[in-house]
Amino acid sequence: MTVALCAGSFDPPTNGHIDLIRRSASMFDEVVVGIVANPSKAPRLPADRRMSLLSDLLVGQINVRVETFSGLVVELATSVGAHVIVKGVRGVADFEAELQMAHMNRHLSGINTVFLPTSPEVAHISSSLVKEIFALGGSIEGLVPPSVAIALEE
Amino acid sequence: MTVALCAGSFDPPTNGHIDLIRRSASMFDEVVVGIVANPSKAPRLPADRRMSLLSDLLVGQINVRVETFSGLVVELATSVGAHVIVKGVRGVADFEAELQMAHMNRHLSGINTVFLPTSPEVAHISSSLVKEIFALGGSIEGLVPPSVAIALEE
Amino acid sequence: MTVALCAGSFDPPTNGHIDLIRRSASMFDEVVVGIVANPSKAPRLPADRRMSLLSDLLVGQINVRVETFSGLVVELATSVGAHVIVKGVRGVADFEAELQMAHMNRHLSGINTVFLPTSPEVAHISSSLVKEIFALGGSIEGLVPPSVAIALEE
Amino acid sequence: MTVALCAGSFDPPTNGHIDLIRRSASMFDEVVVGIVANPSKAPRLPADRRMSLLSDLLVGQINVRVETFSGLVVELATSVGAHVIVKGVRGVADFEAELQMAHMNRHLSGINTVFLPTSPEVAHISSSLVKEIFALGGSIEGLVPPSVAIALEE
Amino acid sequence: MTVALCAGSFDPPTNGHIDLIRRSASMFDEVVVGIVANPSKAPRLPADRRMSLLSDLLVGQINVRVETFSGLVVELATSVGAHVIVKGVRGVADFEAELQMAHMNRHLSGINTVFLPTSPEVAHISSSLVKEIFALGGSIEGLVPPSVAIALEE
Amino acid sequence: MTVALCAGSFDPPTNGHIDLIRRSASMFDEVVVGIVANPSKAPRLPADRRMSLLSDLLVGQINVRVETFSGLVVELATSVGAHVIVKGVRGVADFEAELQMAHMNRHLSGINTVFLPTSPEVAHISSSLVKEIFALGGSIEGLVPPSVAIALEE
Repeated sequence: MTVALCAGSFDPPTNGHIDLIRRSASMFDEVVVGIVANPSKAPRLPADRRMSLLSDLLVGQINVRVETFSGLVVELATSVGAHVIVKGVRGVADFEAELQMAHMNRHLSGINTVFLPTSPEVAHISSSLVKEIFALGGSIEGLVPPSVAIALEE
Repeated sequence: MTVALCAGSFDPPTNGHIDLIRRSASMFDEVVVGIVANPSKAPRLPADRRMSLLSDLLVGQINVRVETFSGLVVELATSVGAHVIVKGVRGVADFEAELQMAHMNRHLSGINTVFLPTSPEVAHISSSLVKEIFALGGSIEGLVPPSVAIALEE
Repeated sequence: MTVALCAGSFDPPTNGHIDLIRRSASMFDEVVVGIVANPSKAPRLPADRRMSLLSDLLVGQINVRVETFSGLVVELATSVGAHVIVKGVRGVADFEAELQMAHMNRHLSGINTVFLPTSPEVAHISSSLVKEIFALGGSIEGLVPPSVAIALEE
Repeated sequence: MTVALCAGSFDPPTNGHIDLIRRSASMFDEVVVGIVANPSKAPRLPADRRMSLLSDLLVGQINVRVETFSGLVVELATSVGAHVIVKGVRGVADFEAELQMAHMNRHLSGINTVFLPTSPEVAHISSSLVKEIFALGGSIEGLVPPSVAIALEE
Repeated sequence: MTVALCAGSFDPPTNGHIDLIRRSASMFDEVVVGIVANPSKAPRLPADRRMSLLSDLLVGQINVRVETFSGLVVELATSVGAHVIVKGVRGVADFEAELQMAHMNRHLSGINTVFLPTSPEVAHISSSLVKEIFALGGSIEGLVPPSVAIALEE
Repeated sequence: MTVALCAGSFDPPTNGHIDLIRRSASMFDEVVVGIVANPSKAPRLPADRRMSLLSDLLVGQINVRVETFSGLVVELATSVGAHVIVKGVRGVADFEAELQMAHMNRHLSGINTVFLPTSPEVAHISSSLVKEIFALGGSIEGLVPPSVAIALEE
C-alpha cells in the first residue's frame, strides 16, 4: 500500500490543486493533503478555512484526508507514514525549484518526491496569480471552485 | 495496490537505471520494467541480453518484474495494468522532453506519468554517454554494474 | 499592415499547426504559411501533398496563403514582404532552440521573430511524435485533422 | 490593422525597453505603451515621471502612444483595442514566468501574447538591476537613456 | 598568475560554499573570498562572524584569503586585481539568474565570470534553505560545517 | 600557473570560438585548444585544415597552442596538464547538456569544468548553423573569419 503526501499552502485552493489531488488519489492507495498552517507570508485565508474548503471539495474521495501542519514537510510525511511526496509541476521553473527541495527532503528523511505534471487546462493557475487577479477586481471564475470564490469575497 | 511501469531502452542498463528501479520498488506495490525491444537506432545489446542482465541485477527485488515489448509504451502500460508510468529525470532538459511525452501518453491512454529525480550521485550517467566512453576506450567502472561491463566487452 | 510568416516542415500538418496559423491570422493582417520543400530528412509526405492539405484546411482564412520554398527562411520572408516571423513554442526547450535561430535570422535579414505560445490543449502534439505514434500503430485521432490522417494512411 | 500593447512598470525605463518598443513599432501598425501606475512595490519614480520620460524618448515614433493604467493588463488591452500583447524576453527564466501569465491573460480576455526576444546587446539590462547598481554607486551609463539617469539623480 | 574572486553573502557559509572555494583554489593561483557586508535583507549572522567562520574553515588553504566588502562586486574584483569572477551553479535556474549578472559585470568592468557546477553531493544546499530548516527546528547536520551550526545556535 | 583546455570540433571555427579562446587566454596562464580529429559525423573540413586555420587565427596569442586529438577529452586534458576545462555556453540548453558532461569528466579524471558565457554579439553563432546557412547559399559574413569562409568555398 502506498501513502502519498500532497503538501502546500493552498492559499487559496485552486482548480489546479483539486486536479492534482484527484489524479494522485487515482494513482496511490491513500493521499494525505497537508496544509501549511504557518506560511512565512500572512495567509489570505486562515488555515482552518482552507482546511474546511478542501475537506468539502474532496468529500467524494474516500482515500483522501486533509490535515494542517506546521514545521517541516518531511516531519508530516514521516508522521503520516507517507512513502512518497507528490508535487505538481506546471513547467520548468516549478521543476527546478522543487528539484532542490526534493533532494533536500530526501537528505533529511529518505523520503522520495515525485513530480506530477499539471493538466494543461489548469497549468496557468496558481494561488498567487488568483490572489493578484482578485485584488485587481478581475474574474476568478474557472480558476477556483465556487466555494473558494465565495470565501475570498467574505 | 499501485502498479508502476518503468519503460526504456536500457541499452545498456546503467547504475542510474538500477537506482531508479530500486527507488520505484520502495514506493510502489509492484514495478514492471519494460524494455523496448525495437528501438529506432540499432541497439548495442540485443533485447534478450538486456532482459537477462536486468533480471539478474534485480533478482532480490520481489515486487519487480522485467518484460520486453515493442509498440507504444501506453499499450504495455495498459496490458500490465499500470496505474502510473515512472520516468527518471536528471535535470531540466530531460524533464521538458518527457513532459510532452507524458501529456501525449495521458492523451492516448489516460495513464499519468510521474517524474522521479535521479539520485545526484548517478545523475551524470546515461546509456548513450556510457556507449560513447566505452567506444573511445575510457573506463566505465562505476557507471554500469560489473555484469553489464562484461556484456559490453563481449 | 503587418505581414507575418509561419514557416516549417509541416510533415505532417498537425492540429497544433492549424491552431498556430489561425491565431496568427487573428493577430496579423496577412499570414504567409511557408512549407520547407526540401527538409534535410526525407519527408513523410511530399511537399505538394502538404501544400494541398494545408490549403484545404485553411480555406476559410481569407488573410492566409500557403507557399512552398527551398532555401533560407529569411529569403522567403524577404520575398513575401514579411515584417515578422512567427514561431509557435510549446515550452522552454522549443524556446531556446528557436531563440538562437531568431537572433541568426535577424542578423541575416533584420527581420524580427516573435514567439507565440502553443495553446495548452495542443501543446503535446508535434509532427515527429505523430509520425512515431502512427508508425507504432497508435491512434492519431485528435492529433491531426482527419484529412491528414487519411493522407498518412495512403 | 494590428494594435499591440507593451505593458510594464518601466521603473525606470531602460535602453532595453526602448529597444523593445521601437522594434514593436516596426512590426505593428500601432503600439500602446502601458505603464502600471500602482506596482505592488513602492516605485522608484512616480508614474507621471515615467510617463513623461517615455513620451519624450519615443517622440519620433508616430505609431506609438504612452498611457498609464491601474488594474489588470487585459483590461487595458481590451480598452485600447489591442490585438496582441508583446512581452520582451531576455531568456528562459523570463519566458517561463511570462508563459503562465500569457495563458492566464488569454483565459481572461482571449487576447494572445507574443514574445519578442531582447536584442543581445541590451539583454543584460533590467530595471531592478539598474536600481541596484545605482543604489550602490555604480555607473548606469549605457543602461538607461541620459534623461532617465538625470531623473534618478534627482 | 590568475586571481579569482568568489563573492557572496555566505549567510551562513554552507558545505556547498566550502566545496566551491576549495575547488576554485585547486584551479586558480589565488582565490579571494568576498563577503557582502550589507546584503539587502537583514543578515542572520553579522559580517564579522561570517568572516571569522570562513577564515577558520579555510585555514589550510594557503592561496585563499577572505575579505568583507560593501558596494558592487566588480569594484571588489577590480581592487583585488581579480582576472575572473567564479560563481557556483547548482542548476539551470541559478545559471540563468547569474548569466544576466555576468553580462552586466562584464559591461561594468570588463571582467569575465565563469560558472563552476556545484558538486552533486552538495547541490541541494543553499543558505536560505539552511536558514528555513533551522528556523523550523530541522537538523542542519551535513549541510553546514559544525562551527557554523554552533554559530547559528548562539 | 593555470592551464586551461578548450576542446571541440571547430568544424568550422567561428567568430564565437575565437571570442571564447581569446577571453580564456586573458584569464588563464596557458590555453590549449584541442581539436577533435575524429568527430562521429563526417567533418566538413579535415582536422589538419581546422588546425592550420585556428593556428593562423590565433597567431598573436602567445599563451595559446593548438592540438588535434582523438579519444576522450579528459585524456587530452590529463596529457597536457590542464587544471580546468573551459566550455563556452550560449544559453540554458548548452548549459544543461554540458553540465552532465562536466560531471562525467570530473568522475573520469577529477578535472573541473568551468562555463564561460558566450559574448552576446556572437551568441547566435554555431558551427552547425554556419554549415546549414552555407549549404543553403546564405551569407556567412560576420559569422566566421574571412579565412574560414575561403576554406569552406574550396
